[in-house]
Amino acid sequence: MNWKCDIQNIEPDIKISLTKVGISNLKKLVRIKRNGKRPIILLPTFDVSVNLPSSQKGIHMSRHPEVIEEIIDEALKMESYEMETICEEIVKRLFKKHEYANRAEVLMISDFMLEEKSPISKKISQEVHKIIGGAKGIKENDNLKITKIVGAEVVGITACPCAQNLIKEICIENLKNKGFSDEDILKILDSVIFATHNQRGIGKIILEIPEDYYVEILDIINIIKNSMSAEIYGILKRVDEAYVVKKSHTNPKFVEDCVREMANRIVKKFNHLPDETKVHIKQINFESIHRHNAFAEINTTLGELRKELL
Amino acid sequence: MNWKCDIQNIEPDIKISLTKVGISNLKKLVRIKRNGKRPIILLPTFDVSVNLPSSQKGIHMSRHPEVIEEIIDEALKMESYEMETICEEIVKRLFKKHEYANRAEVLMISDFMLEEKSPISKKISQEVHKIIGGAKGIKENDNLKITKIVGAEVVGITACPCAQNLIKEICIENLKNKGFSDEDILKILDSVIFATHNQRGIGKIILEIPEDYYVEILDIINIIKNSMSAEIYGILKRVDEAYVVKKSHTNPKFVEDCVREMANRIVKKFNHLPDETKVHIKQINFESIHRHNAFAEINTTLGELRKELL
Amino acid sequence: MNWKCDIQNIEPDIKISLTKVGISNLKKLVRIKRNGKRPIILLPTFDVSVNLPSSQKGIHMSRHPEVIEEIIDEALKMESYEMETICEEIVKRLFKKHEYANRAEVLMISDFMLEEKSPISKKISQEVHKIIGGAKGIKENDNLKITKIVGAEVVGITACPCAQNLIKEICIENLKNKGFSDEDILKILDSVIFATHNQRGIGKIILEIPEDYYVEILDIINIIKNSMSAEIYGILKRVDEAYVVKKSHTNPKFVEDCVREMANRIVKKFNHLPDETKVHIKQINFESIHRHNAFAEINTTLGELRKELL
Amino acid sequence: MNWKCDIQNIEPDIKISLTKVGISNLKKLVRIKRNGKRPIILLPTFDVSVNLPSSQKGIHMSRHPEVIEEIIDEALKMESYEMETICEEIVKRLFKKHEYANRAEVLMISDFMLEEKSPISKKISQEVHKIIGGAKGIKENDNLKITKIVGAEVVGITACPCAQNLIKEICIENLKNKGFSDEDILKILDSVIFATHNQRGIGKIILEIPEDYYVEILDIINIIKNSMSAEIYGILKRVDEAYVVKKSHTNPKFVEDCVREMANRIVKKFNHLPDETKVHIKQINFESIHRHNAFAEINTTLGELRKELL
Repeated sequence: MNWKCDIQNIEPDIKISLTKVGISNLKKLVRIKRNGKRPIILLPTFDVSVNLPSSQKGIHMSRHPEVIEEIIDEALKMESYEMETICEEIVKRLFKKHEYANRAEVLMISDFMLEEKSPISKKISQEVHKIIGGAKGIKENDNLKITKIVGAEVVGITACPCAQNLIKEICIENLKNKGFSDEDILKILDSVIFATHNQRGIGKIILEIPEDYYVEILDIINIIKNSMSAEIYGILKRVDEAYVVKKSHTNPKFVEDCVREMANRIVKKFNHLPDETKVHIKQINFESIHRHNAFAEINTTLGELRKELL
Repeated sequence: MNWKCDIQNIEPDIKISLTKVGISNLKKLVRIKRNGKRPIILLPTFDVSVNLPSSQKGIHMSRHPEVIEEIIDEALKMESYEMETICEEIVKRLFKKHEYANRAEVLMISDFMLEEKSPISKKISQEVHKIIGGAKGIKENDNLKITKIVGAEVVGITACPCAQNLIKEICIENLKNKGFSDEDILKILDSVIFATHNQRGIGKIILEIPEDYYVEILDIINIIKNSMSAEIYGILKRVDEAYVVKKSHTNPKFVEDCVREMANRIVKKFNHLPDETKVHIKQINFESIHRHNAFAEINTTLGELRKELL
Repeated sequence: MNWKCDIQNIEPDIKISLTKVGISNLKKLVRIKRNGKRPIILLPTFDVSVNLPSSQKGIHMSRHPEVIEEIIDEALKMESYEMETICEEIVKRLFKKHEYANRAEVLMISDFMLEEKSPISKKISQEVHKIIGGAKGIKENDNLKITKIVGAEVVGITACPCAQNLIKEICIENLKNKGFSDEDILKILDSVIFATHNQRGIGKIILEIPEDYYVEILDIINIIKNSMSAEIYGILKRVDEAYVVKKSHTNPKFVEDCVREMANRIVKKFNHLPDETKVHIKQINFESIHRHNAFAEINTTLGELRKELL
Repeated sequence: MNWKCDIQNIEPDIKISLTKVGISNLKKLVRIKRNGKRPIILLPTFDVSVNLPSSQKGIHMSRHPEVIEEIIDEALKMESYEMETICEEIVKRLFKKHEYANRAEVLMISDFMLEEKSPISKKISQEVHKIIGGAKGIKENDNLKITKIVGAEVVGITACPCAQNLIKEICIENLKNKGFSDEDILKILDSVIFATHNQRGIGKIILEIPEDYYVEILDIINIIKNSMSAEIYGILKRVDEAYVVKKSHTNPKFVEDCVREMANRIVKKFNHLPDETKVHIKQINFESIHRHNAFAEINTTLGELRKELL
């Protein structure tokens, strides 16, 4: 009697190819090297998968998830300067272990601490952002094409332009009733910061770039920060708080404005990236006057964005 | 050989009493009767438990969770006008099935739809709130004392009083520089609604009342709504949006103010409830200028609140 | 001075088309009609969006989200027999209000209660599943093409085939050591249900069908249930519990098997649907021997599945 | 005109004391020193609050949350060997800044990576657990009493004893029908590992100890691991997987057993801790045969547990 656990080599009854087989919600500690500084420590969550192509659809992948975890643990022992390079390494090892696969994908998301200065008092505090790294591999014949994924998710404040105008109208009416002249009112409009609803917003950018290109994650974080009405901070002394409220209210933005602003800044900042770079931009506003959220998205290529902005 | 599954009557090796044994995250559909109207449909999540007192610590409760689910399904077949009465019924049935227990607890939380009118345009839309019902039973000798739990969680808008003053200071300085007199400035302050940061806030009230008392859930929802800077709506025509922004900015509130306001309104509205009524009040603000939240809480009795407000 | 809030008709500075603008996390109560029975009550969460095409990229959509909420509230007043028909109605109304858009999308997800009988004792209890409905519209010239989305997410139990074989090997070794013959061992293997790890699994199917086709949601729920090792129940008397454990352990399945089984059953059951029907299948297992999850996915068309199963 | 933002010194209209005012969901990077090793990096989420006693109820705490964030950032610059010592430091600084307060509370929860060996193949992999640290301070007259909080949350596997017996009954019946003698059946029962449902479980222990006592967090993690049916691992080679399934199925446990086991091990391991130590123990099982979870809790003191176990 032979009772070996070799089920994974047995032909399955139903022969259908699978788009993805993998593991999700895997947490690992990752060390990112930095020149002459302490390494950055990340505690990302990984999603990792390969496909099972139709040409090989009879192969059973029972021990697949186990192999994935092992590969990640080995790849993490290597030294690396970027999270997307670690993901690339994992993709390459996935193809070595899973010869039948012609697609592999690794995605990681992690909190990322930055020391930042408040705008006026210059108090330094730790600020947390989310960073996203990844790699996708496609094998055709013996060619392996790898795309790297780099992105971030940053929280900021957005103030509504429309409601601010509504409030302005009301206040102008009040000023007229108090007897102020049109000339005076223009001066007042120039001196006063009017109320509007504002709220926590989340901006998100994900770029998919060819293997031999590089994007600095801090550039992405800064683009997102600068595309909302104002950036926010952990520690705000009074002068800082006044600065943030003033800045956001003199720079009101809809969700649509935020994603357009991000798109515009991406085109300007990353002129070294090729047209084929995939660009995903999203802004979500946790509307303070509603229970639901407002959002806007752009899913396109850098080439398309460049054409639109000509 | 006797292999019956009677493990739950076997003495456990480690004889320690348990504070709670039960099930959580149980979803059920509940029908609440209403006079002459369609019943209200709720899809709450239940947490249900009993204790295992030290006097009976040898009893093993293996099938305990199964019995709980059965009891709930039976209780839900009854007709009831209040969610807390259903919980009371479940508590009573728990004691019947679990003779050794002297404590039982049922808590349910559910989305609850109300049709509400927008403030100016009077557009009707469905608004969702969370409602919380429950019952706790304590058995002493042959006496069963039941406390009912009634509460709600409502989303609204809060505007910060402090940042608004900071902005006022800046604007007054600007107005002075433009040559406006002190008298003019006072008129302008009277006419203008100044900016401040505002955000989505959640107010929460939970009351624990003796079995023979009653609290109308709509009263709790209204108290929470009226204790933030302004209530919010699903559908807001322009006139409504202007109203909400104006109201919230002429009624700015810290988290501390919101919980105090709720406490004050509870004392005024529920003068029929006894001093022993337990009162839990919480306000959480999803600060638009920070990544973290601000919160304030009051956990006390109605009697204590009454004393403080004398 | 003209201070009307007409910002949304002003040309934006950055002229980029948007893939989606909309609202998310919107909760509404939905009544689904049934012939001769009480209507089904759902409390779904909606995500709704339209695009802003490049041909019209100058239009500003500030009040867009408000219009969406209004459209949903109006559509929900209509009577309907299916959730996807409600979504279709919303899509059509979106196009009426947003003439520039050529894509619109509505997705809703809701808890859904079914009364189900336990397998042996036939106890009836409420069982909760998730159902997914939606509609996507594409407008080309004056043609509107609508695709309906119907899907479900069902929790069940999966038992691992590989670990069960490992345990069998150990037990056979033990039996040999006790002196049992090969013939006896074969009889024992035939009589005994061996241990393996098993866990909560979630199966998910989403179909995208042309406007004039229909899929019964209960059929999707049943396919998911029957594709795991065993279906699960709220109330399980002892005989039922034994049945579920026995069934799942004599029907062990990997994540790969579950998605293949679902694919196979979809092809058999829905032979009235056209080849272009998009099919999304996913199985997630909350592995009891790991902290991470295992998953498998098939994203294809019904036509492709039919070819593979020839 | 004096428009300083000194609102927080103004008497509030409603004079009610507050149980807690603070901030929640604050993420910070924490470095824990270790002798001769790289420091441990944690990315915990903090909840921090103080009370506003009735004796001082007129004071307004508008800038309270800001002060809290500042205190945390300063405390984190200090070197520390334990997370609870950091929390203690924060509590002490809270009292310095908030003279009126007589209660302060800090709670942090963080992922924590440990390198662990798989049981048989001895493969090393990173395993993630949750750790909980905190401190509570009570000021009476000029005395400050501090309690430290140390705890952990660990994922493992639990197998159901009752269902295993039900399966045994069925198999014995089958064996009898095949003609096996009672003597043979006893031998078979001794050789075979029977099926039962098993699932991911979470064990949780939180201890509240006086300021001058110490608890090693690894001891708490180990107690939780050893109190379920078996501990689990990221990387499991076949021999390891067989080991985990065998161990869990020869050590089946209800939620009640797990909490009792933890209580027993706590009493044995921590005999240096005083009777007043508060002990919170919880086990949650994500039942594979149900959609809901089963749980058991013990909330008591070490003194009470010692009495019960005499």
